[in-house]
Amino acid sequence: MAQNIYDTREFFEGYSRFPRSLEGLEGAPEWPALRALLPPLEGLRVLDLGCGFGWFARWAHNAGAGSVVGVDVSKRMLERAHRSASGEVVRYLRADLERLPLACGRFDLVFSSLALHYLKDYEALCGYIRRLLTPGGHLVFSVEHPIFTAPSRPGWRTDADGYRFWPVDGYLKEGGRTTEGIVPGVEKYHRTVAGYVNPLLERGFRPERLVEWGPSIDQIAERVELEAETHRPAFLLIRARTEWQPAAL
Amino acid sequence: MAQNIYDTREFFEGYSRFPRSLEGLEGAPEWPALRALLPPLEGLRVLDLGCGFGWFARWAHNAGAGSVVGVDVSKRMLERAHRSASGEVVRYLRADLERLPLACGRFDLVFSSLALHYLKDYEALCGYIRRLLTPGGHLVFSVEHPIFTAPSRPGWRTDADGYRFWPVDGYLKEGGRTTEGIVPGVEKYHRTVAGYVNPLLERGFRPERLVEWGPSIDQIAERVELEAETHRPAFLLIRARTEWQPAAL
Repeated sequence: MAQNIYDTREFFEGYSRFPRSLEGLEGAPEWPALRALLPPLEGLRVLDLGCGFGWFARWAHNAGAGSVVGVDVSKRMLERAHRSASGEVVRYLRADLERLPLACGRFDLVFSSLALHYLKDYEALCGYIRRLLTPGGHLVFSVEHPIFTAPSRPGWRTDADGYRFWPVDGYLKEGGRTTEGIVPGVEKYHRTVAGYVNPLLERGFRPERLVEWGPSIDQIAERVELEAETHRPAFLLIRARTEWQPAAL
Repeated sequence: MAQNIYDTREFFEGYSRFPRSLEGLEGAPEWPALRALLPPLEGLRVLDLGCGFGWFARWAHNAGAGSVVGVDVSKRMLERAHRSASGEVVRYLRADLERLPLACGRFDLVFSSLALHYLKDYEALCGYIRRLLTPGGHLVFSVEHPIFTAPSRPGWRTDADGYRFWPVDGYLKEGGRTTEGIVPGVEKYHRTVAGYVNPLLERGFRPERLVEWGPSIDQIAERVELEAETHRPAFLLIRARTEWQPAAL
Protein backbone atom coordinates (compact mmCIF):
# COMPACT_ATOMS: atom_id res chain seq x y z
CA MET A 1 0.00 0.00 0.00
CA ALA A 2 1.12 3.54 -0.69
CA GLN A 3 2.61 5.41 2.24
CA ASN A 4 -0.15 7.30 4.08
CA ILE A 5 2.00 10.12 5.33
CA TYR A 6 -0.89 12.57 5.33
CA ASP A 7 -2.28 10.94 8.45
CA THR A 8 0.89 11.48 10.49
CA ARG A 9 0.33 14.48 12.75
CA GLU A 10 3.47 16.37 11.80
CA PHE A 11 2.96 16.02 8.05
CA PHE A 12 -0.74 16.80 8.24
CA GLU A 13 -0.14 19.95 10.23
CA GLY A 14 2.63 21.05 7.87
CA TYR A 15 0.57 20.30 4.79
CA SER A 16 -2.44 22.08 6.26
CA ARG A 17 -0.42 25.31 6.27
CA PHE A 18 0.40 25.14 2.53
CA PRO A 19 -1.27 27.86 0.43
CA ARG A 20 -3.04 25.13 -1.55
CA SER A 21 -4.49 23.76 1.70
CA LEU A 22 -5.52 27.11 3.13
CA GLU A 23 -6.73 28.79 -0.05
CA GLY A 24 -7.84 25.72 -1.97
CA LEU A 25 -7.46 25.54 -5.72
CA GLU A 26 -6.62 29.23 -6.02
CA GLY A 27 -3.61 28.66 -3.77
CA ALA A 28 -2.11 26.23 -6.29
CA PRO A 29 -0.24 28.13 -9.01
CA GLU A 30 -0.76 25.31 -11.54
CA TRP A 31 -4.54 25.26 -11.05
CA PRO A 32 -5.36 27.61 -13.96
CA ALA A 33 -3.37 25.36 -16.31
CA LEU A 34 -4.98 22.21 -14.93
CA ARG A 35 -8.45 23.75 -15.12
CA ALA A 36 -7.81 24.65 -18.76
CA LEU A 37 -7.41 20.93 -19.53
CA LEU A 38 -10.82 20.02 -18.10
CA PRO A 39 -13.86 19.40 -20.30
CA PRO A 40 -17.08 21.28 -19.45
CA LEU A 41 -18.23 19.56 -16.27
CA GLU A 42 -21.98 20.01 -16.67
CA GLY A 43 -23.65 16.70 -15.88
CA LEU A 44 -20.43 14.66 -15.83
CA ARG A 45 -19.80 11.82 -13.45
CA VAL A 46 -16.46 12.70 -11.89
CA LEU A 47 -13.93 10.64 -9.95
CA ASP A 48 -11.18 12.48 -8.06
CA LEU A 49 -8.23 10.25 -7.13
CA GLY A 50 -6.39 11.68 -4.14
CA CYS A 51 -9.08 14.23 -3.32
CA GLY A 52 -7.44 15.51 -0.14
CA PHE A 53 -9.49 18.25 1.50
CA GLY A 54 -12.10 18.02 -1.26
CA TRP A 55 -11.40 21.38 -2.86
CA PHE A 56 -11.75 20.02 -6.36
CA ALA A 57 -14.83 17.97 -5.50
CA ARG A 58 -16.52 21.12 -4.25
CA TRP A 59 -15.41 23.08 -7.30
CA ALA A 60 -16.67 20.33 -9.63
CA HIS A 61 -20.00 20.33 -7.82
CA ASN A 62 -20.31 24.08 -8.30
CA ALA A 63 -19.30 23.68 -11.94
CA GLY A 64 -22.34 21.49 -12.51
CA ALA A 65 -20.92 17.97 -12.31
CA GLY A 66 -23.68 15.38 -12.10
CA SER A 67 -21.83 13.48 -9.40
CA VAL A 68 -18.43 13.54 -7.77
CA VAL A 69 -16.67 10.73 -5.96
CA GLY A 70 -13.55 11.75 -4.06
CA VAL A 71 -11.12 9.04 -3.03
CA ASP A 72 -8.28 9.43 -0.58
CA VAL A 73 -6.30 7.24 1.76
CA SER A 74 -6.08 9.93 4.45
CA LYS A 75 -8.73 9.77 7.15
CA ARG A 76 -7.84 13.24 8.44
CA MET A 77 -8.17 14.84 5.03
CA LEU A 78 -11.46 13.12 4.28
CA GLU A 79 -12.91 14.28 7.59
CA ARG A 80 -12.23 17.84 6.58
CA ALA A 81 -13.50 17.20 3.05
CA HIS A 82 -16.77 15.87 4.45
CA ARG A 83 -17.28 19.04 6.44
CA SER A 84 -16.62 21.19 3.38
CA ALA A 85 -18.95 19.51 0.88
CA SER A 86 -20.81 16.24 0.80
CA GLY A 87 -24.31 14.99 0.20
CA GLU A 88 -26.23 13.67 -2.77
CA VAL A 89 -23.80 14.88 -5.41
CA VAL A 90 -20.43 14.69 -3.63
CA ARG A 91 -19.38 11.50 -1.92
CA TYR A 92 -16.10 10.40 -0.44
CA LEU A 93 -14.47 7.04 -0.21
CA ARG A 94 -11.48 6.16 1.90
CA ALA A 95 -9.24 3.85 -0.08
CA ASP A 96 -5.68 3.21 -1.17
CA LEU A 97 -5.45 4.32 -4.81
CA GLU A 98 -3.54 1.13 -5.52
CA ARG A 99 -6.47 -0.95 -4.30
CA LEU A 100 -9.53 0.91 -5.43
CA PRO A 101 -12.65 -0.98 -4.42
CA LEU A 102 -14.75 0.47 -7.24
CA ALA A 103 -16.27 -1.92 -9.73
CA CYS A 104 -16.00 -1.28 -13.45
CA GLY A 105 -17.59 2.09 -13.42
CA ARG A 106 -19.23 4.72 -15.47
CA PHE A 107 -17.22 7.85 -15.00
CA ASP A 108 -16.93 10.57 -17.63
CA LEU A 109 -13.91 12.24 -16.04
CA VAL A 110 -11.16 10.91 -13.83
CA PHE A 111 -9.19 13.71 -12.22
CA SER A 112 -6.11 13.58 -10.04
CA SER A 113 -3.98 16.37 -8.66
CA LEU A 114 -0.45 15.60 -7.40
CA ALA A 115 -1.24 12.11 -6.19
CA LEU A 116 -0.08 9.58 -8.76
CA HIS A 117 3.64 10.09 -8.12
CA TYR A 118 3.07 8.45 -4.74
CA LEU A 119 2.00 5.20 -6.40
CA LYS A 120 4.35 2.36 -7.18
CA ASP A 121 2.18 0.79 -9.86
CA TYR A 122 1.05 3.60 -12.15
CA GLU A 123 0.70 1.18 -15.07
CA ALA A 124 -1.90 -0.94 -13.28
CA LEU A 125 -3.81 2.19 -12.25
CA CYS A 126 -3.90 3.36 -15.89
CA GLY A 127 -5.59 0.11 -16.87
CA TYR A 128 -7.99 0.43 -13.97
CA ILE A 129 -8.88 4.03 -14.86
CA ARG A 130 -9.40 2.92 -18.45
CA ARG A 131 -12.08 0.47 -17.29
CA LEU A 132 -13.75 3.05 -15.06
CA LEU A 133 -14.12 5.56 -17.89
CA THR A 134 -16.84 5.63 -20.50
CA PRO A 135 -15.67 5.56 -24.14
CA GLY A 136 -14.43 9.05 -24.98
CA GLY A 137 -14.10 9.79 -21.26
CA HIS A 138 -11.39 12.13 -20.00
CA LEU A 139 -8.42 11.62 -17.76
CA VAL A 140 -6.86 14.85 -16.50
CA PHE A 141 -4.07 14.71 -13.96
CA SER A 142 -1.02 16.44 -12.57
CA VAL A 143 2.09 14.93 -11.00
CA GLU A 144 5.40 16.27 -9.84
CA HIS A 145 7.49 16.69 -12.98
CA PRO A 146 10.11 14.00 -13.65
CA ILE A 147 12.89 16.62 -13.67
CA PHE A 148 11.69 17.56 -10.19
CA THR A 149 11.49 13.99 -8.88
CA ALA A 150 14.60 12.52 -10.54
CA PRO A 151 17.53 13.88 -8.55
CA SER A 152 18.96 12.16 -5.52
CA ARG A 153 19.93 15.61 -4.20
CA PRO A 154 17.06 17.87 -5.28
CA GLY A 155 17.25 21.59 -4.65
CA TRP A 156 18.37 24.74 -6.43
CA ARG A 157 22.08 25.47 -6.55
CA THR A 158 23.83 28.73 -7.31
CA ASP A 159 27.34 29.23 -8.64
CA ALA A 160 29.58 31.93 -7.22
CA ASP A 161 28.69 34.17 -10.18
CA GLY A 162 24.96 33.84 -9.57
CA TYR A 163 24.17 31.16 -12.18
CA ARG A 164 21.27 29.18 -10.72
CA PHE A 165 20.38 25.68 -11.77
CA TRP A 166 18.67 22.44 -10.79
CA PRO A 167 20.87 19.33 -10.59
CA VAL A 168 19.60 16.27 -12.45
CA ASP A 169 20.82 12.74 -11.92
CA GLY A 170 19.11 9.36 -12.10
CA TYR A 171 16.51 10.62 -14.58
CA LEU A 172 16.24 7.28 -16.38
CA LYS A 173 16.29 5.28 -13.14
CA GLU A 174 12.59 5.00 -12.44
CA GLY A 175 11.53 3.95 -8.98
CA GLY A 176 11.30 5.03 -5.37
CA ARG A 177 12.73 8.27 -4.07
CA THR A 178 12.80 9.24 -0.42
CA THR A 179 12.86 12.99 0.00
CA GLU A 180 12.84 15.60 2.70
CA GLY A 181 9.50 17.30 2.39
CA ILE A 182 7.47 18.69 5.26
CA VAL A 183 8.99 15.83 7.22
CA PRO A 184 11.92 13.56 6.37
CA GLY A 185 11.22 10.26 4.67
CA VAL A 186 8.47 11.14 2.21
CA GLU A 187 8.26 8.26 -0.28
CA LYS A 188 7.57 9.03 -3.92
CA TYR A 189 8.06 7.25 -7.20
CA HIS A 190 10.02 8.83 -9.98
CA ARG A 191 8.96 8.15 -13.55
CA THR A 192 10.18 9.71 -16.78
CA VAL A 193 7.81 11.69 -19.01
CA ALA A 194 7.74 8.65 -21.31
CA GLY A 195 6.98 6.57 -18.21
CA TYR A 196 3.80 8.59 -17.73
CA VAL A 197 2.80 8.73 -21.40
CA ASN A 198 3.53 5.23 -22.75
CA PRO A 199 1.33 3.31 -20.27
CA LEU A 200 -1.57 5.50 -21.41
CA LEU A 201 -0.84 4.79 -25.07
CA GLU A 202 -0.62 1.06 -24.36
CA ARG A 203 -3.98 1.03 -22.56
CA GLY A 204 -6.20 2.69 -25.10
CA PHE A 205 -5.80 6.32 -24.13
CA ARG A 206 -5.21 9.04 -26.65
CA PRO A 207 -3.22 11.91 -25.14
CA GLU A 208 -4.63 15.28 -26.08
CA ARG A 209 -2.18 17.61 -24.39
CA LEU A 210 0.93 17.61 -22.23
CA VAL A 211 1.77 20.61 -20.08
CA GLU A 212 5.12 21.02 -18.41
CA TRP A 213 3.99 23.63 -16.01
CA GLY A 214 5.57 27.01 -15.58
CA PRO A 215 4.11 30.25 -14.25
CA SER A 216 2.44 32.69 -16.62
CA ILE A 217 3.78 36.22 -17.06
CA ASP A 218 0.87 37.49 -14.96
CA GLN A 219 1.71 35.08 -12.18
CA ILE A 220 5.36 36.15 -12.18
CA ALA A 221 4.31 39.81 -12.12
CA GLU A 222 2.28 39.05 -9.01
CA ARG A 223 4.83 36.78 -7.33
CA VAL A 224 8.32 37.43 -8.65
CA GLU A 225 9.77 34.34 -6.92
CA LEU A 226 7.80 32.18 -9.35
CA GLU A 227 10.22 33.15 -12.14
CA ALA A 228 12.58 30.44 -10.85
CA GLU A 229 9.96 27.87 -11.85
CA THR A 230 10.57 28.62 -15.54
CA HIS A 231 13.98 26.99 -15.20
CA ARG A 232 12.78 23.60 -14.06
CA PRO A 233 9.13 22.54 -14.41
CA ALA A 234 7.63 21.50 -11.09
CA PHE A 235 4.57 19.79 -12.53
CA LEU A 236 3.57 17.63 -15.47
CA LEU A 237 -0.08 17.86 -16.51
CA ILE A 238 -1.70 15.43 -18.93
CA ARG A 239 -5.07 15.34 -20.61
CA ALA A 240 -6.02 12.09 -22.35
CA ARG A 241 -9.21 10.46 -23.57
CA THR A 242 -10.21 6.87 -23.92
CA GLU A 243 -10.68 5.78 -27.50
CA TRP A 244 -14.18 5.72 -28.84
CA GLN A 245 -15.28 2.18 -29.51
CA PRO A 246 -18.31 0.73 -31.26
CA ALA A 247 -21.24 0.63 -28.84
CA ALA A 248 -21.40 -3.14 -29.17
CA LEU A 249 -18.10 -3.41 -27.29
CA MET B 1 17.19 29.27 -43.19
CA ALA B 2 18.68 26.84 -40.70
CA GLN B 3 22.39 27.22 -40.05
CA ASN B 4 24.33 24.96 -42.44
CA ILE B 5 27.28 24.33 -40.20
CA TYR B 6 27.95 20.93 -41.72
CA ASP B 7 29.44 22.59 -44.78
CA THR B 8 32.06 24.52 -42.83
CA ARG B 9 35.36 22.69 -43.20
CA GLU B 10 36.21 22.51 -39.51
CA PHE B 11 32.81 21.19 -38.45
CA PHE B 12 32.61 18.75 -41.33
CA GLU B 13 36.02 17.30 -40.55
CA GLY B 14 35.20 17.03 -36.84
CA TYR B 15 31.82 15.46 -37.53
CA SER B 16 33.35 13.04 -40.01
CA ARG B 17 35.46 11.56 -37.20
CA PHE B 18 32.44 10.78 -34.96
CA PRO B 19 31.75 7.06 -34.50
CA ARG B 20 28.33 7.59 -36.08
CA SER B 21 30.01 9.04 -39.16
CA LEU B 22 32.72 6.41 -39.44
CA GLU B 23 30.69 3.35 -38.49
CA GLY B 24 27.28 4.49 -39.68
CA LEU B 25 24.13 3.50 -37.82
CA GLU B 26 25.97 0.95 -35.68
CA GLY B 27 28.16 3.75 -34.35
CA ALA B 28 25.12 5.53 -32.90
CA PRO B 29 24.21 4.06 -29.50
CA GLU B 30 20.56 5.09 -29.86
CA TRP B 31 20.14 3.34 -33.22
CA PRO B 32 18.78 0.04 -31.82
CA ALA B 33 16.07 2.00 -29.96
CA LEU B 34 15.28 4.10 -33.03
CA ARG B 35 15.18 1.04 -35.28
CA ALA B 36 12.75 -0.63 -32.86
CA LEU B 37 10.28 2.20 -33.53
CA LEU B 38 10.28 1.66 -37.30
CA PRO B 39 7.52 -0.22 -39.09
CA PRO B 40 8.55 -3.05 -41.45
CA LEU B 41 10.06 -1.17 -44.39
CA GLU B 42 9.19 -3.62 -47.17
CA GLY B 43 7.78 -1.62 -50.07
CA LEU B 44 7.44 1.65 -48.14
CA ARG B 45 8.08 5.05 -49.67
CA VAL B 46 10.51 6.64 -47.23
CA LEU B 47 11.58 10.24 -46.71
CA ASP B 48 14.66 10.91 -44.56
CA LEU B 49 14.90 14.49 -43.32
CA GLY B 50 18.51 15.40 -42.56
CA CYS B 51 19.95 12.32 -44.22
CA GLY B 52 23.60 13.29 -43.76
CA PHE B 53 25.95 10.69 -45.19
CA GLY B 54 22.99 8.54 -46.25
CA TRP B 55 23.56 5.70 -43.79
CA PHE B 56 19.86 5.34 -43.07
CA ALA B 57 18.89 5.65 -46.74
CA ARG B 58 21.21 2.77 -47.55
CA TRP B 59 19.90 0.74 -44.63
CA ALA B 60 16.28 1.39 -45.66
CA HIS B 61 17.10 0.33 -49.20
CA ASN B 62 18.58 -2.93 -47.90
CA ALA B 63 15.55 -3.39 -45.65
CA GLY B 64 13.33 -3.47 -48.72
CA ALA B 65 11.97 0.08 -48.89
CA GLY B 66 10.23 0.74 -52.19
CA SER B 67 11.88 4.14 -52.49
CA VAL B 68 13.96 6.43 -50.34
CA VAL B 69 14.38 10.18 -50.66
CA GLY B 70 17.13 11.67 -48.51
CA VAL B 71 17.09 15.41 -47.90
CA ASP B 72 19.90 17.43 -46.44
CA VAL B 73 21.14 21.00 -46.57
CA SER B 74 24.80 19.97 -46.59
CA LYS B 75 26.43 19.68 -50.00
CA ARG B 76 29.47 17.90 -48.59
CA MET B 77 27.39 15.28 -46.82
CA LEU B 78 25.20 14.64 -49.85
CA GLU B 79 28.26 14.17 -52.05
CA ARG B 80 29.40 11.39 -49.78
CA ALA B 81 25.85 9.97 -49.54
CA HIS B 82 25.68 9.81 -53.33
CA ARG B 83 28.86 7.78 -53.49
CA SER B 84 27.56 5.34 -50.86
CA ALA B 85 24.13 4.58 -52.32
CA SER B 86 22.01 6.13 -55.01
CA GLY B 87 20.12 5.09 -58.09
CA GLU B 88 16.59 4.06 -58.91
CA VAL B 89 15.51 3.44 -55.32
CA VAL B 90 17.58 5.97 -53.36
CA ARG B 91 17.58 9.60 -54.35
CA TYR B 92 18.92 12.70 -52.66
CA LEU B 93 17.71 16.22 -52.60
CA ARG B 94 19.63 19.21 -51.35
CA ALA B 95 17.25 21.48 -49.45
CA ASP B 96 16.74 23.42 -46.26
CA LEU B 97 14.32 21.37 -44.11
CA GLU B 98 12.47 24.59 -43.37
CA ARG B 99 11.83 25.12 -47.07
CA LEU B 100 11.20 21.68 -48.46
CA PRO B 101 10.43 21.91 -52.16
CA LEU B 102 8.38 18.70 -52.17
CA ALA B 103 4.76 18.90 -53.21
CA CYS B 104 2.06 17.21 -51.17
CA GLY B 105 3.52 13.77 -51.31
CA ARG B 106 2.84 10.16 -50.85
CA PHE B 107 5.27 8.92 -48.27
CA ASP B 108 4.55 6.01 -45.94
CA LEU B 109 7.35 6.84 -43.52
CA VAL B 110 9.06 10.09 -42.65
CA PHE B 111 12.25 9.50 -40.70
CA SER B 112 14.63 11.97 -39.13
CA SER B 113 17.67 11.41 -36.96
CA LEU B 114 19.04 14.26 -34.84
CA ALA B 115 18.07 17.00 -37.26
CA LEU B 116 14.85 18.65 -36.09
CA HIS B 117 16.43 20.43 -33.09
CA TYR B 118 18.27 22.60 -35.60
CA LEU B 119 14.99 23.98 -36.94
CA LYS B 120 13.36 27.13 -35.69
CA ASP B 121 9.87 26.27 -36.87
CA TYR B 122 9.19 22.70 -35.83
CA GLU B 123 5.43 23.35 -35.74
CA ALA B 124 5.30 24.28 -39.41
CA LEU B 125 7.38 21.24 -40.32
CA CYS B 126 4.93 18.99 -38.43
CA GLY B 127 2.10 20.29 -40.56
CA TYR B 128 4.17 19.83 -43.68
CA ILE B 129 5.12 16.26 -42.77
CA ARG B 130 1.46 15.57 -42.07
CA ARG B 131 0.60 16.51 -45.64
CA LEU B 132 3.43 14.44 -47.07
CA LEU B 133 2.31 11.28 -45.28
CA THR B 134 -0.39 8.88 -46.39
CA PRO B 135 -3.22 8.25 -43.87
CA GLY B 136 -1.85 5.88 -41.26
CA GLY B 137 1.69 6.78 -42.30
CA HIS B 138 4.51 6.82 -39.77
CA LEU B 139 6.74 9.55 -38.44
CA VAL B 140 9.77 8.29 -36.53
CA PHE B 141 12.39 10.76 -35.36
CA SER B 142 15.06 11.49 -32.80
CA VAL B 143 16.22 14.82 -31.42
CA GLU B 144 18.56 15.90 -28.69
CA HIS B 145 16.58 15.56 -25.47
CA PRO B 146 15.18 18.77 -23.95
CA ILE B 147 17.08 18.16 -20.71
CA PHE B 148 20.22 18.05 -22.85
CA THR B 149 19.42 21.17 -24.86
CA ALA B 150 17.93 23.35 -22.09
CA PRO B 151 20.89 24.52 -20.01
CA SER B 152 22.80 27.67 -20.72
CA ARG B 153 25.87 25.96 -19.26
CA PRO B 154 25.57 22.34 -20.38
CA GLY B 155 28.06 19.76 -19.16
CA TRP B 156 28.43 17.26 -16.35
CA ARG B 157 29.46 18.56 -12.94
CA THR B 158 30.87 16.67 -9.99
CA ASP B 159 30.74 17.62 -6.33
CA ALA B 160 33.78 17.19 -4.11
CA ASP B 161 32.30 13.93 -2.78
CA GLY B 162 31.86 12.47 -6.25
CA TYR B 163 28.14 13.23 -6.76
CA ARG B 164 27.75 13.78 -10.51
CA PHE B 165 24.87 15.67 -12.06
CA TRP B 166 23.68 17.65 -15.06
CA PRO B 167 22.69 21.28 -14.43
CA VAL B 168 19.30 22.33 -15.78
CA ASP B 169 18.16 25.90 -16.24
CA GLY B 170 15.91 27.57 -18.79
CA TYR B 171 13.97 24.36 -19.45
CA LEU B 172 10.70 26.18 -20.09
CA LYS B 173 12.36 28.92 -22.15
CA GLU B 174 12.04 27.47 -25.61
CA GLY B 175 14.15 28.99 -28.35
CA GLY B 176 17.66 29.29 -29.70
CA ARG B 177 20.72 27.98 -27.93
CA THR B 178 24.27 28.57 -29.10
CA THR B 179 26.57 25.81 -27.89
CA GLU B 180 30.16 24.73 -28.13
CA GLY B 181 30.09 21.56 -30.15
CA ILE B 182 32.77 20.46 -32.56
CA VAL B 183 33.24 24.18 -33.17
CA PRO B 184 31.96 27.16 -31.17
CA GLY B 185 28.70 28.74 -32.21
CA VAL B 186 26.54 25.77 -33.13
CA GLU B 187 22.95 27.02 -33.26
CA LYS B 188 20.17 24.77 -32.01
CA TYR B 189 16.62 25.24 -30.83
CA HIS B 190 15.52 24.03 -27.45
CA ARG B 191 12.00 22.74 -27.04
CA THR B 192 10.36 21.00 -24.10
CA VAL B 193 9.05 17.45 -24.40
CA ALA B 194 5.56 18.95 -24.56
CA GLY B 195 6.90 21.29 -27.25
CA TYR B 196 7.69 18.25 -29.38
CA VAL B 197 4.50 16.30 -28.60
CA ASN B 198 1.72 18.92 -28.65
CA PRO B 199 2.35 20.18 -32.22
CA LEU B 200 1.94 16.56 -33.38
CA LEU B 201 -1.33 16.19 -31.47
CA GLU B 202 -2.61 19.45 -32.92
CA ARG B 203 -1.82 18.40 -36.48
CA GLY B 204 -3.54 15.03 -36.63
CA PHE B 205 -0.76 12.77 -35.43
CA ARG B 206 -1.33 10.06 -32.89
CA PRO B 207 1.82 9.40 -30.86
CA GLU B 208 2.48 5.71 -30.43
CA ARG B 209 5.60 5.76 -28.29
CA LEU B 210 8.04 8.14 -26.63
CA VAL B 211 11.55 7.01 -25.78
CA GLU B 212 13.83 9.03 -23.57
CA TRP B 213 16.95 7.26 -24.59
CA GLY B 214 19.37 5.60 -22.26
CA PRO B 215 21.86 2.80 -22.90
CA SER B 216 20.81 -0.81 -22.40
CA ILE B 217 22.54 -3.02 -19.84
CA ASP B 218 24.34 -4.76 -22.69
CA GLN B 219 25.58 -1.46 -24.05
CA ILE B 220 26.89 -0.41 -20.64
CA ALA B 221 28.61 -3.78 -20.23
CA GLU B 222 30.38 -3.13 -23.50
CA ARG B 223 31.15 0.55 -22.94
CA VAL B 224 31.09 1.38 -19.24
CA GLU B 225 31.24 5.15 -19.89
CA LEU B 226 27.69 4.94 -21.24
CA GLU B 227 26.38 4.45 -17.69
CA ALA B 228 26.52 8.23 -17.24
CA GLU B 229 23.83 8.52 -19.90
CA THR B 230 21.27 6.94 -17.56
CA HIS B 231 21.40 10.10 -15.44
CA ARG B 232 20.36 12.52 -18.15
CA PRO B 233 18.77 11.33 -21.40
CA ALA B 234 20.67 12.54 -24.44
CA PHE B 235 17.96 11.77 -26.98
CA LEU B 236 14.21 11.90 -27.32
CA LEU B 237 12.72 9.45 -29.82
CA ILE B 238 9.11 9.65 -31.00
CA ARG B 239 6.97 7.37 -33.12
CA ALA B 240 3.65 8.79 -34.31
CA ARG B 241 1.14 7.98 -37.02
CA THR B 242 -1.21 10.12 -38.97
CA GLU B 243 -4.86 9.47 -38.22
CA TRP B 244 -6.76 7.25 -40.57
CA GLN B 245 -9.43 9.23 -42.36
CA PRO B 246 -12.30 8.20 -44.58
CA ALA B 247 -11.04 7.83 -48.14
CA ALA B 248 -13.41 10.58 -49.30
CA LEU B 249 -11.42 13.14 -47.32
